[in-house]
Amino acid sequence: MNRTLTALVALSLCVPAAANVPPPLDLAQRADLALASDNHAYAFIEGLTTEVGPRQAGTEAEARARAWAVEWLKQYGFENIAIEPFMMDTWVPGDIAHARVTGPFAQDLEVLPLGNSAATPVGGIEAEVVYFRNVDELRAAPDGSLKGKIAFISHAMSRTQDGSQYGFAGPARWVGAGIAASKGAVGAVIKSVGTDNHRNPHTGGTSFPDGITPIPAGALSLPDAANLERMFARAKGRPITLRLEMNPRQLGPKESGNVVGEIVGRNPSLPPVLLACHIDSWWNAPGAFDDAAGCGIIIAAARSVAESGRPLRTIRVLLAGAEEVGLFGSTAYSKAHLAEPIAVGIESDFGADRIWRFDSNFRETNPVLHKKIASAVARFGVSSGTDVAGGGADLNIVRDQKGALIDLQQDGTRYFDLHHTPDDTLDKIDIVQLRQNVAVWTQVVGILANEETAILTGTPIPAAPAIMQSN
Amino acid sequence: MNRTLTALVALSLCVPAAANVPPPLDLAQRADLALASDNHAYAFIEGLTTEVGPRQAGTEAEARARAWAVEWLKQYGFENIAIEPFMMDTWVPGDIAHARVTGPFAQDLEVLPLGNSAATPVGGIEAEVVYFRNVDELRAAPDGSLKGKIAFISHAMSRTQDGSQYGFAGPARWVGAGIAASKGAVGAVIKSVGTDNHRNPHTGGTSFPDGITPIPAGALSLPDAANLERMFARAKGRPITLRLEMNPRQLGPKESGNVVGEIVGRNPSLPPVLLACHIDSWWNAPGAFDDAAGCGIIIAAARSVAESGRPLRTIRVLLAGAEEVGLFGSTAYSKAHLAEPIAVGIESDFGADRIWRFDSNFRETNPVLHKKIASAVARFGVSSGTDVAGGGADLNIVRDQKGALIDLQQDGTRYFDLHHTPDDTLDKIDIVQLRQNVAVWTQVVGILANEETAILTGTPIPAAPAIMQSN
Repeated sequence: MNRTLTALVALSLCVPAAANVPPPLDLAQRADLALASDNHAYAFIEGLTTEVGPRQAGTEAEARARAWAVEWLKQYGFENIAIEPFMMDTWVPGDIAHARVTGPFAQDLEVLPLGNSAATPVGGIEAEVVYFRNVDELRAAPDGSLKGKIAFISHAMSRTQDGSQYGFAGPARWVGAGIAASKGAVGAVIKSVGTDNHRNPHTGGTSFPDGITPIPAGALSLPDAANLERMFARAKGRPITLRLEMNPRQLGPKESGNVVGEIVGRNPSLPPVLLACHIDSWWNAPGAFDDAAGCGIIIAAARSVAESGRPLRTIRVLLAGAEEVGLFGSTAYSKAHLAEPIAVGIESDFGADRIWRFDSNFRETNPVLHKKIASAVARFGVSSGTDVAGGGADLNIVRDQKGALIDLQQDGTRYFDLHHTPDDTLDKIDIVQLRQNVAVWTQVVGILANEETAILTGTPIPAAPAIMQSN
Repeated sequence: MNRTLTALVALSLCVPAAANVPPPLDLAQRADLALASDNHAYAFIEGLTTEVGPRQAGTEAEARARAWAVEWLKQYGFENIAIEPFMMDTWVPGDIAHARVTGPFAQDLEVLPLGNSAATPVGGIEAEVVYFRNVDELRAAPDGSLKGKIAFISHAMSRTQDGSQYGFAGPARWVGAGIAASKGAVGAVIKSVGTDNHRNPHTGGTSFPDGITPIPAGALSLPDAANLERMFARAKGRPITLRLEMNPRQLGPKESGNVVGEIVGRNPSLPPVLLACHIDSWWNAPGAFDDAAGCGIIIAAARSVAESGRPLRTIRVLLAGAEEVGLFGSTAYSKAHLAEPIAVGIESDFGADRIWRFDSNFRETNPVLHKKIASAVARFGVSSGTDVAGGGADLNIVRDQKGALIDLQQDGTRYFDLHHTPDDTLDKIDIVQLRQNVAVWTQVVGILANEETAILTGTPIPAAPAIMQSN
């Protein structure tokens, strides 16, 4: 019902207002309305997670997600909707992931493979575990010292509002297995890079250096990693042995794709505003936070802006494919469209909790616009930061163009409780915070899409004829 | 280090106090000390969950748990320690548990088998799902109407401090699969009987009526069950099909056992105070809440009482085997010892959170003692209830003897977040609340173990010579 109604509303953008119809809400009123009652972002997240679910890059599930998103954009009245396919080397997790301590304290541990992990032989491998409290300890291990062993790489990570401890703890996953392999290990398990205490391992990509053959590499859930650490404290020098069995596979090149759609501006010759998210997720969860939420937010905000009047500039949404496994969609999009200037890029890919800070990379070059935005979002509890915005993962094109970027920083306090775990499900969405996102995005995107000067510098853009003047 | 020290302290019970050694703390002081600083209950839980882990009844893991507990009791100075074996029909979960919606919204669902579930054929079964919002709807389905189908049995459960909604929601698990089988279903999945929102199914026993062949029966995690419910809302009459594969097995009779140990009283001819817990857990978790905590609490409390002076009555701990799968240990213990009167029974088997209510079944028959206990525990925030205590699951012997029972009601608000899930791990233990349990138990057990009259009635017991008068 919502969808039909929405489609009608969207279509009405091109229809002259009938007599006695109240004028459309202005941008600020639209943002306030989103804060009070937006259901469109939630409906997107609910729909995608229920009707498609997990959507590992390069698989048929990701293809279904693209088709589903195209239908959604159509029903919301977007124009120029397209799937832009690209090929990518595709890894899939398989359906076996078992870890068991076989001595001296025999018990199963919850494990999931890391992206790019190799498979074990059928029946698994069994080897002594060597415990490293962090990646630095692993780096310090002598060459060859892990021959025939399984490395267990730990770390400690705290919840942070800005998510900054991901950079602090992440190397355990990003490079741990590769370093272990280079020192002779036959397998690696890491303490999940996360902040929860549930039996849900955090997967994510790992990489192996050139010339190093990938080894089986898995993430233990936080409680299981803590248990293994306690075992080392209790083993009193006895070897701890682990049996590990996993069957992920590299499938070679498979098709992925980006989904794009537009709210065409009154002057389509002006560079568009690019709103990005990613449509893929890891296989182990329907990816409500990561990143159905981001796609729901940007689509709802674009629609909300359009309902306050067709904007001057085109608003383009980019639902990138294959982000999790290596930003393949972002790279492909930049390669295909580098010659087409983007006015400004913004991404939503950090869950669905409240936006608390706004950063741009034009605070010094276009202070008027920066301040205008800061002033407009202040009422939503969003302060202006002093960082230079770097843009989200799917904004390679803007970085490649050295263009304007904005970061709308979400509260990441509980993001790494859920990130890349099976637990990233619809019920984690707090609709009150989600609506605040849509409100802030509406406000920001509305300002940007109606900005007459170049976003990055504030310099006037030569006037071009407006080709459409509805609303 | 703690263990060695503790063993020395326990041994010192029989040694006359040396000159210049301060007198032992009295009972109330011991309870206060437990509240402030008890680490013994936590150490038990940590040790059992780390060194043994999950301990499914009838398996070698449960046998390891018994051996581990015997060592613990020895090191804590208990006497008359014994394993009392018994045979029981043993079910094991297997190592395959997959559920996948195959249409129209294809995706995997997290599932675990229910105790007594049958196996699917290799490769699984695939069938249309019939959705029942609750057991009453399932009961109302016509005979034969589920032929060839998989029943999905839902319910709704709220968190309650007293855990009372377990009785309200539990039938979905206890009888749902059996009813479905009797109506022709080839499989059943239930919404987990629980109150969390994590991807961790709640297992637990189910039963099939006489004459009904067991079918494959699993629990979906709460988020997955909610997802399946949303699919039914969106399918618009299209059939929803599920593929289910599980390989649990019935192994026939295997050995389980109870572990007992005693603090022998000054007058061992008096009926003992029986403190119960259970040593087994489901296979899917190390069972920190259920019920390593209970065993840790009763052992710590018995020890704490002993340290305030050898009690008049013997305190016996019963770490029952095979509770989860049908109270086999409780039944076996009653059968073996029914002729030996128990003074009073208390069990700890509801997690590790704060005790808030005290009930007995002698409030009217022995009001003096009831009030004495109520008065002694009031300072810990424990009120006197008006329920007639029924005793825990492992106290069959006391019920069979129509003896005295006490219930120390723990806060169950988060108990059914964890109950029978993989998530029941050490990190869920709140040591501050755990210590309050040990404090309350110390106070209650100390009073009971030094009570000179019959607990249930308050009638005088004929004097018997005290055989030991140390401390």
